[in-house]
Amino acid sequence: MLERLKKEVLEANLALPEHGLVTFTWGNVSGIDRGTGLVVIKPSGVPYDELQIDDLVVLDLDGNIVEGSLRPSSDTPTHLALYRAFPQIGGIVHTHSPGATSWAQAGRPIPALGTTHADYFYGEIPCTRTLSQEEIDRGYELETGNVIIETFEKEGLDPVAMPGILLSGHAPFSWGKNANQAVHNAVVLEEVAKMALNTFTLNPQIKPIDQFLLDKHYLRKHGANAYYGQK
Amino acid sequence: MLERLKKEVLEANLALPEHGLVTFTWGNVSGIDRGTGLVVIKPSGVPYDELQIDDLVVLDLDGNIVEGSLRPSSDTPTHLALYRAFPQIGGIVHTHSPGATSWAQAGRPIPALGTTHADYFYGEIPCTRTLSQEEIDRGYELETGNVIIETFEKEGLDPVAMPGILLSGHAPFSWGKNANQAVHNAVVLEEVAKMALNTFTLNPQIKPIDQFLLDKHYLRKHGANAYYGQK
Amino acid sequence: MLERLKKEVLEANLALPEHGLVTFTWGNVSGIDRGTGLVVIKPSGVPYDELQIDDLVVLDLDGNIVEGSLRPSSDTPTHLALYRAFPQIGGIVHTHSPGATSWAQAGRPIPALGTTHADYFYGEIPCTRTLSQEEIDRGYELETGNVIIETFEKEGLDPVAMPGILLSGHAPFSWGKNANQAVHNAVVLEEVAKMALNTFTLNPQIKPIDQFLLDKHYLRKHGANAYYGQK
Amino acid sequence: MLERLKKEVLEANLALPEHGLVTFTWGNVSGIDRGTGLVVIKPSGVPYDELQIDDLVVLDLDGNIVEGSLRPSSDTPTHLALYRAFPQIGGIVHTHSPGATSWAQAGRPIPALGTTHADYFYGEIPCTRTLSQEEIDRGYELETGNVIIETFEKEGLDPVAMPGILLSGHAPFSWGKNANQAVHNAVVLEEVAKMALNTFTLNPQIKPIDQFLLDKHYLRKHGANAYYGQK
Repeated sequence: MLERLKKEVLEANLALPEHGLVTFTWGNVSGIDRGTGLVVIKPSGVPYDELQIDDLVVLDLDGNIVEGSLRPSSDTPTHLALYRAFPQIGGIVHTHSPGATSWAQAGRPIPALGTTHADYFYGEIPCTRTLSQEEIDRGYELETGNVIIETFEKEGLDPVAMPGILLSGHAPFSWGKNANQAVHNAVVLEEVAKMALNTFTLNPQIKPIDQFLLDKHYLRKHGANAYYGQK
Repeated sequence: MLERLKKEVLEANLALPEHGLVTFTWGNVSGIDRGTGLVVIKPSGVPYDELQIDDLVVLDLDGNIVEGSLRPSSDTPTHLALYRAFPQIGGIVHTHSPGATSWAQAGRPIPALGTTHADYFYGEIPCTRTLSQEEIDRGYELETGNVIIETFEKEGLDPVAMPGILLSGHAPFSWGKNANQAVHNAVVLEEVAKMALNTFTLNPQIKPIDQFLLDKHYLRKHGANAYYGQK
Repeated sequence: MLERLKKEVLEANLALPEHGLVTFTWGNVSGIDRGTGLVVIKPSGVPYDELQIDDLVVLDLDGNIVEGSLRPSSDTPTHLALYRAFPQIGGIVHTHSPGATSWAQAGRPIPALGTTHADYFYGEIPCTRTLSQEEIDRGYELETGNVIIETFEKEGLDPVAMPGILLSGHAPFSWGKNANQAVHNAVVLEEVAKMALNTFTLNPQIKPIDQFLLDKHYLRKHGANAYYGQK
Repeated sequence: MLERLKKEVLEANLALPEHGLVTFTWGNVSGIDRGTGLVVIKPSGVPYDELQIDDLVVLDLDGNIVEGSLRPSSDTPTHLALYRAFPQIGGIVHTHSPGATSWAQAGRPIPALGTTHADYFYGEIPCTRTLSQEEIDRGYELETGNVIIETFEKEGLDPVAMPGILLSGHAPFSWGKNANQAVHNAVVLEEVAKMALNTFTLNPQIKPIDQFLLDKHYLRKHGANAYYGQK
């Protein structure tokens, strides 16, 4: 079964450059097998066009390497923190995709300005606070995970209905029920971010769409009464 | 004959990703056979690179499925409403193409700022009002069609001379005499939207082009005295 | 010899979509044989991927068709006016490339904001006044040529040192010693226009570069003392 | 050994169009062999798709041509000045990549607005002052090198930790320990420049990231305690 997960995580990593979300070795995708609690993640700094299935690193949720001879992504502690805190998610993506990163650098959450957003993100996409020096000294990547979890707790957000976040001064993280869906959400986040930027340029006073339109679009694609797509 | 229409609608759907107008399964194209009153439309949520001719769904103008085992696009009631109200049109396209969607999200019509616009859209491209909660509850996709029709009636617009519209907080619809021409107009709408955004950035006080320049460009390509292209 | 010109004009037309300057059938390139005074131009409305050498139309400078069974580009009278007024030029390009068209729609000349500009355009790229209704009624495409010529006369510009212009509310024209160089200048104009837009976004009060820097860059590539490139 | 350097410089030059950093013949890459003090550089004005290894020009640090029948890049004196002043660097790239050039044209340094920037550039990317007429008359390309060196001296910058700069009214230069790394930094500079532009559009009052976040990201990739990538 882990071979299947590794194959899925490999494909999800390779999908990042195909979708234009990464430059060089930037970005990484992981997936988790909830049965064994093992996480498969991209090795650090390996170019996508050289990435092989055996380069992937397998770790437990405490960060112990179970398989693999390469170092895992330097962002691994962030991934693990999110898997521990959000039991509903099965795959995580980190990129520096330019649109979403521009919002993260601006320190601004992305309001729900249209139905493209509402189809995937049930409300404003949050932006974390910045980390303190103490937090960075203590453990930068772990605290990056913690500030994401803190933001979700403070804002009362559900990681299933809000499958992504912006790290202030950094870039986005997104996730999903598996690695493939996490990439899917990363692509949508980038598209939504670019359109929201243009929308603000056209109308700096723009308000989010009505809650009932947000509900309609999100719920026609998600949940018990969804009617988008095939059964 | 319906085979020919299905082939045309399939090709028109496949043209959307070729022109960079869609991400994933977003967007859909339909075509109508006015003789039988039957509409051919993309199934809901099927990726473009898997789309086969037999996946297309055939419906009558009341929405009864005549052929096809898949669910039609969730936007089907919008398409049918437009076919019923605008007997002159033969094909309809819906996309979330980023430029046009940014204007839709900003809730702004696109003024005719240049001759590229004038070559295809005879005046300002309208933007609908937002839908009320009652309308959305009553039937979101049907009311989406109705608000387009309402906008055309209120503004006294001719759907032949104005082959597209922006849905406030949502995205564009466009159409044409057949599915292929509807896609053509969707491509132009996207191009016009992007250039209009840049034009406003350069000159926020910009006014539409003169009516006589609009007339000249639109009429040299359309109508009895057109002289663009080959006979 | 005309076969050689036709081949050159065909290749120059096909270069437009390769450089991403055109959508659909928009845009056209012509070239002139100064010996015979004959002009070769793209036919109107023919898609680039279907364009054959025998589709090209040959005309004299008065617009009489000498060879070819298709209608010439609807912009032909503009091309002919420019060939008559600017004996130094051998090829002309018209596109609706998005960056340059955005400036044209904004009705703004493009100031020389950097050395990329200075390497090809010796000063501010002019923007024409708008045409009057009377001019449009009299002969739109011919008057389009005339307003370009008028702008060059008024501003005392040399069409060799300033190989392009923006038509207010319309799009750019560019030219060169032959069709290929005209396309080259159209590509540069588009690149310069996009960068100038971004420069203004970053610094709305930006002033043109110093005249001596403009001189340096233009003259190291052009004229008797040029030292860029190979002999 | 010089054959190896020439191969490396050829590949680095060809990487520029692959990464979308250059139009036509714009841009150039050089590399130096510190043992012999010989520099290999692109010839002036040769299209990338025609560039052969034997077209490269070999010069000593005083600009004497040691090998090659073509003229070296017109920017050669700038490259040589940088190699003389910055003994730590082994490769140099000059492009007119649109994002970085827009900042250069705006005359603005690029503040460190996020961790993408911090991963490669340890602080604000500087922008030179403009050159005086006297400097340009004296020797434009040499003085271009000198104003880069002056800027680094004035601002107390280390060319290893700050592997690039913007030339006011012109475009960027970047460098690295070899030609390949110089191209890598040119790609990052372009990406950082584009995202910084969007960030300013979203938040014109944005401040640079905290120094301790800058330290963290730069130092996890560079220096003795780096832990990004494989050993």
